[in-house]
Amino acid sequence: MRYSLISLLFLFGNYHLYAQKTTTKQDSLLVRQIFDEALVHGESYENLRSLCKDVGHRLSGSAGAEKAVVWGEKTLRKMGIDTVYLQEIDVPFWERGDREEAVLLTPEPRNLRIKTLGGSVASPGKIQAEVVEVNSLDEVTRLGTKIKGKIVFYNRPMDPRNISTFDSYGGCVDQRYWGAVQAAEQGAIAVIVRSMTLLEEGHHAHTGSMGYKEGVTKIPAVAVCTEDANALHNVLRTQSGMEMTLDINPRENPDVKSFNVIGEIKGSEFPERIITIGGHLDSWDVGEGAHDDGAGVVHSMEVLRILKAMNYKPKCTIRVVLFMNEENGNMGGKTYAKIMKQENQNIIAAVESDRGGFSPRGFSIRGTDDQVDFVAGFRSLLEPYGLHFYEKGFAGVDINPLAEDLNIVNPDILMMGLVPDSQRYFDFHHNDDDVFENVNKRELELGCASITAMVYLLDKYLNVNG
Amino acid sequence: MRYSLISLLFLFGNYHLYAQKTTTKQDSLLVRQIFDEALVHGESYENLRSLCKDVGHRLSGSAGAEKAVVWGEKTLRKMGIDTVYLQEIDVPFWERGDREEAVLLTPEPRNLRIKTLGGSVASPGKIQAEVVEVNSLDEVTRLGTKIKGKIVFYNRPMDPRNISTFDSYGGCVDQRYWGAVQAAEQGAIAVIVRSMTLLEEGHHAHTGSMGYKEGVTKIPAVAVCTEDANALHNVLRTQSGMEMTLDINPRENPDVKSFNVIGEIKGSEFPERIITIGGHLDSWDVGEGAHDDGAGVVHSMEVLRILKAMNYKPKCTIRVVLFMNEENGNMGGKTYAKIMKQENQNIIAAVESDRGGFSPRGFSIRGTDDQVDFVAGFRSLLEPYGLHFYEKGFAGVDINPLAEDLNIVNPDILMMGLVPDSQRYFDFHHNDDDVFENVNKRELELGCASITAMVYLLDKYLNVNG
Repeated sequence: MRYSLISLLFLFGNYHLYAQKTTTKQDSLLVRQIFDEALVHGESYENLRSLCKDVGHRLSGSAGAEKAVVWGEKTLRKMGIDTVYLQEIDVPFWERGDREEAVLLTPEPRNLRIKTLGGSVASPGKIQAEVVEVNSLDEVTRLGTKIKGKIVFYNRPMDPRNISTFDSYGGCVDQRYWGAVQAAEQGAIAVIVRSMTLLEEGHHAHTGSMGYKEGVTKIPAVAVCTEDANALHNVLRTQSGMEMTLDINPRENPDVKSFNVIGEIKGSEFPERIITIGGHLDSWDVGEGAHDDGAGVVHSMEVLRILKAMNYKPKCTIRVVLFMNEENGNMGGKTYAKIMKQENQNIIAAVESDRGGFSPRGFSIRGTDDQVDFVAGFRSLLEPYGLHFYEKGFAGVDINPLAEDLNIVNPDILMMGLVPDSQRYFDFHHNDDDVFENVNKRELELGCASITAMVYLLDKYLNVNG
Repeated sequence: MRYSLISLLFLFGNYHLYAQKTTTKQDSLLVRQIFDEALVHGESYENLRSLCKDVGHRLSGSAGAEKAVVWGEKTLRKMGIDTVYLQEIDVPFWERGDREEAVLLTPEPRNLRIKTLGGSVASPGKIQAEVVEVNSLDEVTRLGTKIKGKIVFYNRPMDPRNISTFDSYGGCVDQRYWGAVQAAEQGAIAVIVRSMTLLEEGHHAHTGSMGYKEGVTKIPAVAVCTEDANALHNVLRTQSGMEMTLDINPRENPDVKSFNVIGEIKGSEFPERIITIGGHLDSWDVGEGAHDDGAGVVHSMEVLRILKAMNYKPKCTIRVVLFMNEENGNMGGKTYAKIMKQENQNIIAAVESDRGGFSPRGFSIRGTDDQVDFVAGFRSLLEPYGLHFYEKGFAGVDINPLAEDLNIVNPDILMMGLVPDSQRYFDFHHNDDDVFENVNKRELELGCASITAMVYLLDKYLNVNG
C-alpha cells in the first residue's frame, strides 16, 4: 500500500486529533468538577478523623484491625455503593509486649527511647551486653566474631540529599529488615536500629517490620529514636566497652482470620473490566495510622463518593479495596491477586495511595514505556492541579502482587501510585506522631481529587489507548 | 540576504545548541552541589529558630523589630559576607492595645475571639450596636443607610476551590482592607471581618493590614476567628436585631527610624550588575512570623552562605535585602527602590521569598513573555528538585517597587517570587500559630537551595540571554 504526501499528512493530522482527544474541553470541565466536589463537599477528612479517633491504630490481628474492618464496611455501605463485601484472608498476629526497655549502663544509666520492631522475638528476660556500633550489614560481616555475644547498633542515617525521602528510606531500611539476621549470623544477641526518619533529633522511635531467616537464630530487634541514637553514638565514639540492657516481651500468636474490605461501582459498559483503587486498612500499633495509611483508605473511598455525587457512570467497574496486612505480611494484597487470578477477573488498572496525605504532585507508574507515556499524556490537563510528576517507578505494595508471575491475569495491567510531596512523610511514619492532627484537610482532599481525576481518565481512555 | 536550506538548518542547529547551553553537565553538577550543601550543612533552620525564639515577632516600630535589625546585621556579619550595611527608612509604628474584646450579647453573652486589624483606630470606649452580616463591599453599598449606626460583619469565606490558596486570599482580602471605609461611608460604627484562612473551624483570629480613606470617618476594625464567625453567622441567620459590644484600644504612634538590612557578595566580573534577593524582616505582632516571613529571611541569607561554602564566585553582585515594614506600609521596599533609582544602581534581577517555608514548587515570574520563557528554560534542569512551576505572575511586595514608574532603573529587570506549596500557608498567616515549630526543616532547606540554584543560573546566563 502506498501513501501520497497528502494522505500521510492526513494520517498525522488524525494522529494529532486523536492525541488531542485526551484533553477535550469536556475532560477539563469534568476534572474541574472533581476537584470542586473534593474541596467543597469532601468527606475524606471527617472519614479520616473517624478512622483515627473511633478506631485508632489497627495492627493485623488486633482488636483495632477487627474494628477497622467493621468501620470500613459500614462507611462504604453508608455511601450507597452498589456492592460492598469482605474478602477473607489469614493474617499474622504479632503483639508488642508490656515490657520495652533499653538502658545504656555507662557512663551513667540512660534510658533509651525504643520500640520493638514488628515481628521481633522477645529477649530472654533482661539481657546485658556490650554495644557495638555499625553502619551497614557489610560491616557486621567484616567484624565477624568480634560482635559475638554483643548488641549490634545499626546507625547509618537516612541520606538527606535525596529529594524524594522514599529514596533515602530505601537506602537505609535494610538495617531494620535484615539487621537481626546479619548480626545473629555472627553471634550477636540483639540489635538496636536507628529509626528510619530524617528528623535529626527525633523523640520517637519508629517501628516497622523486620525479618528472620530459617536456620539463623532469632534475636530481638528494636528501633531507637534518633536523638538517643546520636547520644549513643557520641558515647561509643569516645569510650569502648559500653554496655546496655534490653528487655522486651513481644509475642507471635497463631494466624487469625481477617478481611480485605471491598466496595464497587459496577461499570455501565464494560463491567468485567475492573479498575482497582486502594490503600491499606491496617497500621502499626502506634499513633493512629493517619498518613500510613488512613490517608490512602479515605482517598480511595472518596473516589467512589465523588463519582456518585457527580452522578458519573463509569464505563468500567471501579473497585475500592481496603487491603488488610500491608505492614507485616501483605496477605491482603497477595490474596486479592490470587483470587483475581483464580476467578480470571480482568483488572485493567490499579491505583494505590500509600505515601501519606500530603499535597499530591503526580504519579509513579509501573508499566511499559508506552503506558508511562499514555499516563503522562494527561499532564497538561492535570498540571493546573499541581500534578507535574509522571515517572516510571514502583506503584505500591498492596497492588504489586497483581503483576507478579503467579497472579497475572492481564499482562497489560497499568499500575500506579499517587505521589504526594514526601518531605514530611518520615516525620510521622510508624511512630506516635502519625495522628489525625498531622494531616492537613486540603492536602488530603487534593489527593482524593487527583486519584479520582486519574480514575476518570483511565475509565474513559484506557480501553481505547491502553 | 538569502538563506539556502542548508544555512537555515545550520541556523536552527545553532539555536538548538544555544538552548542546550542552559543545561550543561556543569550546571547539573552545580545545582546538585547546591542542594547537597543546603540539605547536609544547611543553617537556615537554626537561623529561623534564632529569629523566632531569640527575637520573636517584630512589627515595624516595635522593640522586636529593632532587635530583628540587630539580629539580621549580626547574623550576616557572622557569615563573613563582603559587605553588610543598614539602609535607613522611616516606618509607621502602630501598636495593638491591651484591650481587645468583642461580645455577642444575645441570645446569651458570648466572647468572640478577635484580633484588632493593623492600622485600626481604637473604639471610643466600649461600643454597642446591632450586627449586620454582609458578604461583600457591594452589599454594604446596597444596604446603604440600613447599616447606619451598626457593626458590619464581613463574612465571605475564602473560596476553597482554588488550587493556589493565594488566589482565594486575593478574592477575599478586600473585606479586610477596604471593609471599614466602605462601611463607614454608609454610617457604620465598626467592622468585624471573618479571618483570612481556609480553616473552617479556626481558633485564632488572623490580623493583617487595613486601610482608611481621606474624608471618610475612621472606624475600628477587627478580625474574628472562623469558628466564631460561623457561630455568629448561625445566630444572625435565625434572629434579627442581635447586638454586640466591641472594645479595642490600639494606637498609632509617630513614625520611627528603622532599617533594611543588606549583605552582599561583590560580583567578580560585573560588580555593577546586581541581583537582589530578599524577604521581609518585620512581621505581625502575633506568633513568631516564622512562615511570614522568617522563612524568606533565612532563605535569602542562606543563598549567600551556600555560594560561599561552595567557594563559588558570582559574576554579578548578589545582594540580600532583609526588608523592613512589608506588612504595614512597605517602606522598606519603596525606599530601596527609590535609592536604587537615585544612585542609578543596575538591578538586573530580583528574587523574593514571601510565601512561606513550604516545599518549593517553582517560580512566579514578573517580566516579558521572553523573560518567562528564559526562566522556564531552566525547567528540565530543576524538575528533579520538584521545581515544575514557571508562570507569569506577581513576584513579591518588597521588590515590586523596583518595577514601578518612578523607580525603574533597568526596564529589563527580571523579577520573580519563589512559589512553595500553598496549601497550609493560610493556616498560619498572621496568627498565633505562625511559629517555628510549624516549619519543616527539609521543606525550608529545599526553598534555600531552589533560590540559590536560580540565582546561580541568573548570574551565569542573564547577561547573555536576558
